[in-house]
Amino acid sequence: MYIMELDDVDLKILKIIQNDAKYPLEKIAEEVKVPKSTVAYRIKKMEKMGVIKGYFTYVDPASLNLDYLVITLVRARYGKDYHDSLGKKLSQLPGVWGVYFVLGDMDFVVLARFKNREDFMKNFLEKLINMPEIERTSTHVVAKVYRETPYVIID
Amino acid sequence: MYIMELDDVDLKILKIIQNDAKYPLEKIAEEVKVPKSTVAYRIKKMEKMGVIKGYFTYVDPASLNLDYLVITLVRARYGKDYHDSLGKKLSQLPGVWGVYFVLGDMDFVVLARFKNREDFMKNFLEKLINMPEIERTSTHVVAKVYRETPYVIID
Amino acid sequence: MYIMELDDVDLKILKIIQNDAKYPLEKIAEEVKVPKSTVAYRIKKMEKMGVIKGYFTYVDPASLNLDYLVITLVRARYGKDYHDSLGKKLSQLPGVWGVYFVLGDMDFVVLARFKNREDFMKNFLEKLINMPEIERTSTHVVAKVYRETPYVIID
Amino acid sequence: MYIMELDDVDLKILKIIQNDAKYPLEKIAEEVKVPKSTVAYRIKKMEKMGVIKGYFTYVDPASLNLDYLVITLVRARYGKDYHDSLGKKLSQLPGVWGVYFVLGDMDFVVLARFKNREDFMKNFLEKLINMPEIERTSTHVVAKVYRETPYVIID
Amino acid sequence: MYIMELDDVDLKILKIIQNDAKYPLEKIAEEVKVPKSTVAYRIKKMEKMGVIKGYFTYVDPASLNLDYLVITLVRARYGKDYHDSLGKKLSQLPGVWGVYFVLGDMDFVVLARFKNREDFMKNFLEKLINMPEIERTSTHVVAKVYRETPYVIID
Amino acid sequence: MYIMELDDVDLKILKIIQNDAKYPLEKIAEEVKVPKSTVAYRIKKMEKMGVIKGYFTYVDPASLNLDYLVITLVRARYGKDYHDSLGKKLSQLPGVWGVYFVLGDMDFVVLARFKNREDFMKNFLEKLINMPEIERTSTHVVAKVYRETPYVIID
Amino acid sequence: MYIMELDDVDLKILKIIQNDAKYPLEKIAEEVKVPKSTVAYRIKKMEKMGVIKGYFTYVDPASLNLDYLVITLVRARYGKDYHDSLGKKLSQLPGVWGVYFVLGDMDFVVLARFKNREDFMKNFLEKLINMPEIERTSTHVVAKVYRETPYVIID
Amino acid sequence: MYIMELDDVDLKILKIIQNDAKYPLEKIAEEVKVPKSTVAYRIKKMEKMGVIKGYFTYVDPASLNLDYLVITLVRARYGKDYHDSLGKKLSQLPGVWGVYFVLGDMDFVVLARFKNREDFMKNFLEKLINMPEIERTSTHVVAKVYRETPYVIID
Ligand SMILES: [Mg+2]
Ligand SMILES: [Mg+2]
Ligand SMILES: [Mg+2]
Ligand SMILES: [Mg+2]
Ligand SMILES: [Mg+2]
Ligand SMILES: [Mg+2]
Ligand SMILES: [Mg+2]
Ligand SMILES: [Mg+2]
Repeated sequence: MYIMELDDVDLKILKIIQNDAKYPLEKIAEEVKVPKSTVAYRIKKMEKMGVIKGYFTYVDPASLNLDYLVITLVRARYGKDYHDSLGKKLSQLPGVWGVYFVLGDMDFVVLARFKNREDFMKNFLEKLINMPEIERTSTHVVAKVYRETPYVIID
Repeated sequence: MYIMELDDVDLKILKIIQNDAKYPLEKIAEEVKVPKSTVAYRIKKMEKMGVIKGYFTYVDPASLNLDYLVITLVRARYGKDYHDSLGKKLSQLPGVWGVYFVLGDMDFVVLARFKNREDFMKNFLEKLINMPEIERTSTHVVAKVYRETPYVIID
Repeated sequence: MYIMELDDVDLKILKIIQNDAKYPLEKIAEEVKVPKSTVAYRIKKMEKMGVIKGYFTYVDPASLNLDYLVITLVRARYGKDYHDSLGKKLSQLPGVWGVYFVLGDMDFVVLARFKNREDFMKNFLEKLINMPEIERTSTHVVAKVYRETPYVIID
Repeated sequence: MYIMELDDVDLKILKIIQNDAKYPLEKIAEEVKVPKSTVAYRIKKMEKMGVIKGYFTYVDPASLNLDYLVITLVRARYGKDYHDSLGKKLSQLPGVWGVYFVLGDMDFVVLARFKNREDFMKNFLEKLINMPEIERTSTHVVAKVYRETPYVIID
Repeated sequence: MYIMELDDVDLKILKIIQNDAKYPLEKIAEEVKVPKSTVAYRIKKMEKMGVIKGYFTYVDPASLNLDYLVITLVRARYGKDYHDSLGKKLSQLPGVWGVYFVLGDMDFVVLARFKNREDFMKNFLEKLINMPEIERTSTHVVAKVYRETPYVIID
Repeated sequence: MYIMELDDVDLKILKIIQNDAKYPLEKIAEEVKVPKSTVAYRIKKMEKMGVIKGYFTYVDPASLNLDYLVITLVRARYGKDYHDSLGKKLSQLPGVWGVYFVLGDMDFVVLARFKNREDFMKNFLEKLINMPEIERTSTHVVAKVYRETPYVIID
Repeated sequence: MYIMELDDVDLKILKIIQNDAKYPLEKIAEEVKVPKSTVAYRIKKMEKMGVIKGYFTYVDPASLNLDYLVITLVRARYGKDYHDSLGKKLSQLPGVWGVYFVLGDMDFVVLARFKNREDFMKNFLEKLINMPEIERTSTHVVAKVYRETPYVIID
Repeated sequence: MYIMELDDVDLKILKIIQNDAKYPLEKIAEEVKVPKSTVAYRIKKMEKMGVIKGYFTYVDPASLNLDYLVITLVRARYGKDYHDSLGKKLSQLPGVWGVYFVLGDMDFVVLARFKNREDFMKNFLEKLINMPEIERTSTHVVAKVYRETPYVIID
């Protein structure tokens, strides 16, 4: 994998647009102290090289009535490449937005959002219970979100 | 808390822009089958009401050399409102992007990204070890990311 | 599901009769400050709508020699809808009076009362051991009951 | 403690009224095959001796919007009679209806009902977190109730 | 099961002989203040009724080079009466002197004495590993014996 | 520590008397094929050297109403020689007959017999709860005894 | 197994050469105060008897880019001599340098060194996941090495 | 930290001498196909640069009667840099040869060798029990060593 070398100008641009994707080019140019055309060129290049993977609208989960949040730990059965197929299956479940394969006594950490307990039970937990690759799950209901920052943080 | 009632047009717009914040208004109008001015009006209103909380640029973590990902479970000491002050402290640590207070045998699930083990040790773990509100932590190194979708999913 | 809207009079009546099902209508009427016929009408309505599900006699378990109380945590095997059939089977065991399907590292919490250890062993534990849907159980003998209030509490 | 010896007639009466406290005396007399005066006498005696501890109205929790059910395991700190004072304190929390001191790796099993997550957090969990007698709690959210029979079962 | 009622004289006799099976009858008679013939009669009766189950010589385990002591927790597989057959099998293993079926997260506690690690490995652990009724074992090597009193204690 | 070397004759004698302390000398002599005086001499010597530590009467626990058996795992607090003083304290509790300091995640395994739950609660568990050297206990009630052989086994 | 009896001279020699295999014979002779020929003879004899098992070059793992160290706990499935074949298989995996079969709740402790996470995932973890003898693994990433002394220490 | 770049010749030399520190230079030269002077020069350079950290004699632990091997998991108390001082203290205990600070639910993995249980108890466990920085330890006695290769493995 080729990784593009980012210079100071790139990083300054990213730092501005990371949590404000619609920040005007002129103002970026002013703050970074490079011509506007350079800002435009750099952004295009970073899009092309895969440094910038997209621009997202952050919708308030509560406005969508998605306030039944869970973090589920999943233990896969051992044997026959179950882990990889399970990682993919979990990723495609409705409501699921994070699937991490981790080292330690559990195998996957899954983050998901649902409308309420019935939505969670029917569309998530009952599906997990019937997946043959799973040995155990343990679901932690989220009581309070202290931070959820949907972008990489550049200090 | 007042929650704005979203109608079908709102939801269709959100569904389009959630993972493409720069999608042209004309094309949205065409797809949702409403005038372009309606699209613009609805978006403005959703921004004002807090349904749309922002527009983010999703930067590839690997491009920033942030590929030492960890998920840390934290157990707080009991007593004296430690939980709330701890939730806030954890949220302000460099590298940390998710802090969830959960029900069950652990209290917080913390998601964070670092450059490498040294970065993780010095800027995160050593700080946790010295926080008096913490009883125990258990860090799971992420071996593989199957899914990380930094926006609310609207089906 | 239609849920009947309860008003203040309903709630005041329920609060009185919840732990004294035979409390005289006259005295309820006096305390709630409505005519006796209203009390009678409201109670009938709540019975019909399913708000009041029944009237129970609370018999002292010790008088029935039922003082071997246990709380058993049950972990179901994963796969093939085992959970639902197990929940039903557990509910029908003699001595069992509470069966809850819970989130976390265990699946069911079962509360039961027996005459003594032999009764518990023969009529409960040995049956559990032979249920194919069960992966593990862990029984906690109750050493002391601090509270057991067999009705919903209305503050 | 003196324990009243129950005979067959007593048990038959209890079996009828345990889940129907308002069952008519005449019909009990008919079914148990004793005079109505005997039924009345026996019930009075069992009330006086403490065999019958009360008559309860079973109100549907859902009608009262009490459908956030939890089962919380509590571990007390060791030392200085903490257990007994803790058992009493837990029993007096709003929403709590069952408190059992159990043998094994946990000390108390607490059953409680709340309106929703906020009610649970503010009126229960935050109070527990600040009790000095508690070392740890682990809350299991109830996903489904398979059985909850608020009276002693006489077979 | 018929259980013989023990009186004060019986208990006083048992208290003397429990840890000195060869204590002279005369001296027992003197201490208990009953005729020697009564002592002899009582002992005979208790032998016959099964109150006294035998007289044992307590041999110092270290003198027999049996100083590799272990306490092994055993978890049985669920299903098909495995527990009872396993309890019997464990009881017949060489070196094993205590086998208890217990409530909680483990099923059996097994106490055993061996000459050394090789003896333990070959004659005990390897046999356990190959028993199909066993799901897991966990062996705790005894580091120090604070008390081991091979008789029932009468206070 | 000097350890007496046991020969074949010693071992044969021990094997006979280990579970029958009153077996006649003549019969031992006959079976071991040595003169009766040799048997007497060998036994005296083994008593003097500490190989034979005593003769016990095995009283049936059920006859003494001691059928509430528990196995309690104890975790000591770390620091200041707590372990050794705790081992001694546990050994002196009424009802306790076995106290083992073990390697692994628990520190002590304690075996004890009580008359019933109240006896166990008052004379054992409540004392443990108030010992400052203890961090945690976990009590397993014995449901069935498969083997309890109160003497060293010589094969 | 015959074990050679080591005297003081042997031990003194071993103590010198244990962490300096190329220490000159003359200087050893001088320090131990025996003729050089004795040193040479003793070393030869210890090599022949298996006391000295070899001479190793300790290469700095970091210089070989082997700084992704892990300690993996492995739980074997029970039954059919799985343990022994598993112990051998684990020993032959690339990167693995320590395999210990231990008593307690885990069966094997495995120590291994890899170039990075990808090397670890592909050449180690994925192989473990597909071994039918394994029930569970739990990998602990080493954050810091405080001591690693690759020779037996003679005080 | 400067890290010397190793070429193919260096690696081939290391591969030969890693488990035979006294392998003759002539034979290395022959096998690697470079002049003997190059071999000598390369080895000197790797010694100077810290690639080669020493030459060790691998003494058979059994010959030194060091066959009571343990792997101890240590949990440090949280707060006040306890971890770092504890890591250093553990490293200096007699018998200890490996001390790893690890991520997960335990903090340190300690490997050590002792003569027997008494040696282990007195010189290791009792010292740990009295270290104020330690919250818990859990010692696993090694039952069998499948592999222990005291050098970095170059494939
Ligand atoms: Mg894992
Ligand atoms: Mg929690
Ligand atoms: Mg569950
Ligand atoms: Mg307890
Ligand atoms: Mg059990
Ligand atoms: Mg221990
Ligand atoms: Mg093991
Ligand atoms: Mg750690």
